Amino acid sequence: MSLIVQKYGGTSVGTVERIQEVAKKLIKFQKEGHELVVVLSAMSGETNRLLALANELNDNPHGRELDVLLSTGEQVTIALLCLALEQQGIHAISYTGSQVKILTDNTHNKARIMEIDDEKIRKELDAGHIVIVAGFQGCDQEGNITTLGRGGSDTTAVALAAALKADECQIYTDVDGVYTTDPRVVSEARRLDHITFEEMLEMASLGAKVLQIRSVEFASKYNVPLRVLSSFTEGGGTLISVEDPKMEQALISGIAFNRDEAKLTVLGVPDHPGIAYQILGPIAKNNIEVDMIIQNTGHDGLTDFTFTIHRNDYKNARTILQSTADSLGAREVIGDEHIAKISVVGVGMRSHAGIASTMFESLAKESINISMISTSEIKISVVIDEKYLELGVRSLHKAFHLEQN
Amino acid sequence: MSLIVQKYGGTSVGTVERIQEVAKKLIKFQKEGHELVVVLSAMSGETNRLLALANELNDNPHGRELDVLLSTGEQVTIALLCLALEQQGIHAISYTGSQVKILTDNTHNKARIMEIDDEKIRKELDAGHIVIVAGFQGCDQEGNITTLGRGGSDTTAVALAAALKADECQIYTDVDGVYTTDPRVVSEARRLDHITFEEMLEMASLGAKVLQIRSVEFASKYNVPLRVLSSFTEGGGTLISVEDPKMEQALISGIAFNRDEAKLTVLGVPDHPGIAYQILGPIAKNNIEVDMIIQNTGHDGLTDFTFTIHRNDYKNARTILQSTADSLGAREVIGDEHIAKISVVGVGMRSHAGIASTMFESLAKESINISMISTSEIKISVVIDEKYLELGVRSLHKAFHLEQN
Repeated sequence: MSLIVQKYGGTSVGTVERIQEVAKKLIKFQKEGHELVVVLSAMSGETNRLLALANELNDNPHGRELDVLLSTGEQVTIALLCLALEQQGIHAISYTGSQVKILTDNTHNKARIMEIDDEKIRKELDAGHIVIVAGFQGCDQEGNITTLGRGGSDTTAVALAAALKADECQIYTDVDGVYTTDPRVVSEARRLDHITFEEMLEMASLGAKVLQIRSVEFASKYNVPLRVLSSFTEGGGTLISVEDPKMEQALISGIAFNRDEAKLTVLGVPDHPGIAYQILGPIAKNNIEVDMIIQNTGHDGLTDFTFTIHRNDYKNARTILQSTADSLGAREVIGDEHIAKISVVGVGMRSHAGIASTMFESLAKESINISMISTSEIKISVVIDEKYLELGVRSLHKAFHLEQN
Repeated sequence: MSLIVQKYGGTSVGTVERIQEVAKKLIKFQKEGHELVVVLSAMSGETNRLLALANELNDNPHGRELDVLLSTGEQVTIALLCLALEQQGIHAISYTGSQVKILTDNTHNKARIMEIDDEKIRKELDAGHIVIVAGFQGCDQEGNITTLGRGGSDTTAVALAAALKADECQIYTDVDGVYTTDPRVVSEARRLDHITFEEMLEMASLGAKVLQIRSVEFASKYNVPLRVLSSFTEGGGTLISVEDPKMEQALISGIAFNRDEAKLTVLGVPDHPGIAYQILGPIAKNNIEVDMIIQNTGHDGLTDFTFTIHRNDYKNARTILQSTADSLGAREVIGDEHIAKISVVGVGMRSHAGIASTMFESLAKESINISMISTSEIKISVVIDEKYLELGVRSLHKAFHLEQN
């Protein structure tokens, strides 16, 4: 017998029929002898419906009352799933975040979980009941309702699994696992049976939207084995866990990419200490997040400085940068909104040389120009012209033989 | 400056526009210097939408999880109203029943309020904030969410007013007060400025559906002045409070009626002690509520026994009664589904004779036959043929000069 925390997302509980399907699954798992704690999102569309109401009444709905509003979405689904289980003669009990209680800080709309009281849940599990918990929500020290922000239900599930020392945390979603790359771009993309936390973090932050990055960080920190599976098809999904030294690691696990970024360069700035801060300080002050940063070795006392930001921030960032450039006496500001980033990710990279050269060679063969490069221990990212994205991903997928098991 | 508890029903918060109207009203009241605690129902239609979902998943949704589900309706409206007030620069704070907390017993779906913690509310009022509370809900000793049953939001408002020793509890609804009778039946019906708790209780239980009877009982018990007003029109509404000995009371305050009942008679039953219990016991055991009961003085050791029940229970009750009659050796069971009950209500009746005779004379003039009569200290009810209901109500309204102030 094992204790499993399962999380079902919005599409998995989006209709009455799908809630019934989830109930059937749970009954099957319980019959197999598992103890079950189930975390649910709101029915798909519900959060947007509530947000639309809020937006009609307030130009900028946020803070405490937005959390009171949005947290009702999950409260509805947990009650409905319990009623569906009761109909099948199975005893289940629901808990809101406040009831559990999932104690968070008081940062409304993006609260962080501080502590989980597992007493009630354990008691119900001991009594043989299925426990259904509202995802995405908690409450602060004073009892105010808080929410964890986008993807918060994944975080709830992982945090509960950590608190309960569950054997596994299973995230049911509308894809059946983590792939070597996006199957819509490379038809040979292959589902991975296993991936390490570190790899998943790089994949997630680079645009593979299967799991929320916070939940992976959390699982990694508390060493909770995490599994991504489909609600709609059978299959073992992808297990995300610590590196297993007994297993031979593939050099590269996957290829992540995104086309959400834009690039800004300031040319001919005086190359003196503190220049990076002078350039990026005003950008950060405007709450614009910077991703890649590159500064080349300068000459003649001048240097060029390039960074990428989210494409939505491009216009705003360019204006700020122009004004900084003017005050610094820089030569010119140039930018490009049509870039894409491709990254090869894999823990095997640590112990093998030659990954970078294979990557660059493969792109060169397709005459794809690389405009920026950035590396970490387990990934290499390049920025290229957006129009070569698919071609680049396909050639790399092939070069690293990712279609083979 | 006074402390007012206001309650807005489902139609008063049924759309974004109406929520904005409520926000405007509250700002006006606050500017006039009042401290405000506001109780809200769910948006009209929302409770039925949630119930429909529950019914698709469970043949008989009830108990703990139904309360978890339904309580979200009010949680949505309290958050939306706060957001609407914030938009106008007014600081408001919302509380669910659990947050207040409104402690109830653990009878899910029809819980009773046991205690209200007023600490948080007082603190917020002292800080100059408007406090918005979810109606219809509370929580039990263990923190389980409970609901108070139909009309529970009125009860929440009255209970809060009692706990806070509010100056007045105002119930905003879609009618502008309590009338001498239903204006759809008698066009001369007049809005009453004032009515006593006792009169209102008789009016409410007799079918005047302005206020939930439980909330009137509660207000009477704790002596909370209660006012019924329209959300949509101006006007002072109707004040419901204790009898004011300084005021001259009208003999009759109003005429209530209903056509929800049916009548059953068992003829020729042995007239021995305990016969009433033998007849009504099996009816009560089947959870059928009995309203009027009449047993005439018997003769030849036999008597006739008549009672009324809700029309929905007629078939069921008749079957039960027939079986009882058979075992008692009674002569016959007869019944009538086409009856109506008319009642004249007024505290002035206590000190004046002649009300009954005016009533009977008026009905006789119209050739309306009375089949049952029942009286209390402040009301006289008669059962007549359903088809004479409107005629009867109109003639009585005129006979007691209720169109005059």
